[in-house]
Amino acid sequence: MTRLIDELRKLPGIGTKSAQRLAFHVLRSSAEDAEKLAGAIRELKAHLRLCSICNNITDVDPCSYCTSAVRDQRLICVLEEPTNIATIEKTRSFAGVYHVLHGTLSPIGGVGPEQLRIANLMTRLPEVDEVILATSPTTEGEATARYLVDEIRRSNTRVKVTRIATGVPAGSDIEYADEVTMSRALEGRREL
Amino acid sequence: MTRLIDELRKLPGIGTKSAQRLAFHVLRSSAEDAEKLAGAIRELKAHLRLCSICNNITDVDPCSYCTSAVRDQRLICVLEEPTNIATIEKTRSFAGVYHVLHGTLSPIGGVGPEQLRIANLMTRLPEVDEVILATSPTTEGEATARYLVDEIRRSNTRVKVTRIATGVPAGSDIEYADEVTMSRALEGRREL
Repeated sequence: MTRLIDELRKLPGIGTKSAQRLAFHVLRSSAEDAEKLAGAIRELKAHLRLCSICNNITDVDPCSYCTSAVRDQRLICVLEEPTNIATIEKTRSFAGVYHVLHGTLSPIGGVGPEQLRIANLMTRLPEVDEVILATSPTTEGEATARYLVDEIRRSNTRVKVTRIATGVPAGSDIEYADEVTMSRALEGRREL
Repeated sequence: MTRLIDELRKLPGIGTKSAQRLAFHVLRSSAEDAEKLAGAIRELKAHLRLCSICNNITDVDPCSYCTSAVRDQRLICVLEEPTNIATIEKTRSFAGVYHVLHGTLSPIGGVGPEQLRIANLMTRLPEVDEVILATSPTTEGEATARYLVDEIRRSNTRVKVTRIATGVPAGSDIEYADEVTMSRALEGRREL
């Protein structure tokens, strides 16, 4: 019991109390359900890998996005983490493919370009029309986007490189926009 | 005392408790301070009016923005409320002038185009190169922007009409962006 609680506590957002509650739940579950959970954890690690093209987490390589015939394989959306794919998919307005960097440049955190999955992005460029840099508009995300545009330009001058819009969020009053966001919203204004 | 408390309670964000606290503060103040406060309230209403050009609240008509020689008088930023001017000024990245609508279109709230200060925006168009529609990206703000672009186009086909960017706020992770905001951020992407 203590061993399970200790293991559960290693999960993000799970403290001692939550770990105890989860462990007691497992204790009360049927042997079959407990085995299913253990099996699912084992299977995840045994079968999942990164897609060799886009670095997304997948059980088949290349992943379903990279082999999709209905998605535009010449439009790549570059993301920081695999979870960001869900954020883009939810919009139902993107029909291209992805490239996951698995992090952002962070000199303080000791993350340099070689720690990110940039090399296999460069090899995709000849087959691509546009690369959308959709890293977050945070300090690290912006630095990563700036680094990438320079690298892409150095390697390929034909491909279009775009950056997602920074601005006032939909449904929000401009009264609550901070100076930087408002400044970017003005700068990024579009002709109607 | 009861009369002052009743009057103070009419102010936004002031309940009975706050009104009592403020009234007791006035009671403990010197007669001079109380007279200063009363005088300032009277003076505000006596001297402030709306600028006949931009509808901003001002003590001189036209207001200091509309007569400024250092601001670009050919670039107008259209806003919902006078308080929005502070939001734009804080960015230190806008050197044009303003036009305050004093509200947004709201069919449910009974606010139609004739309730907004649109007529004197139209008369400004011949002297202008660009109109930035900086109403909020809320339902009402978007509807107002859409109405205005049609009206401006009908009256003047030369002037450039732009809309501030909707997107992920600066410093925010895309993980926290809602679908509509993320969709607009993708749609509004800019070439680097």
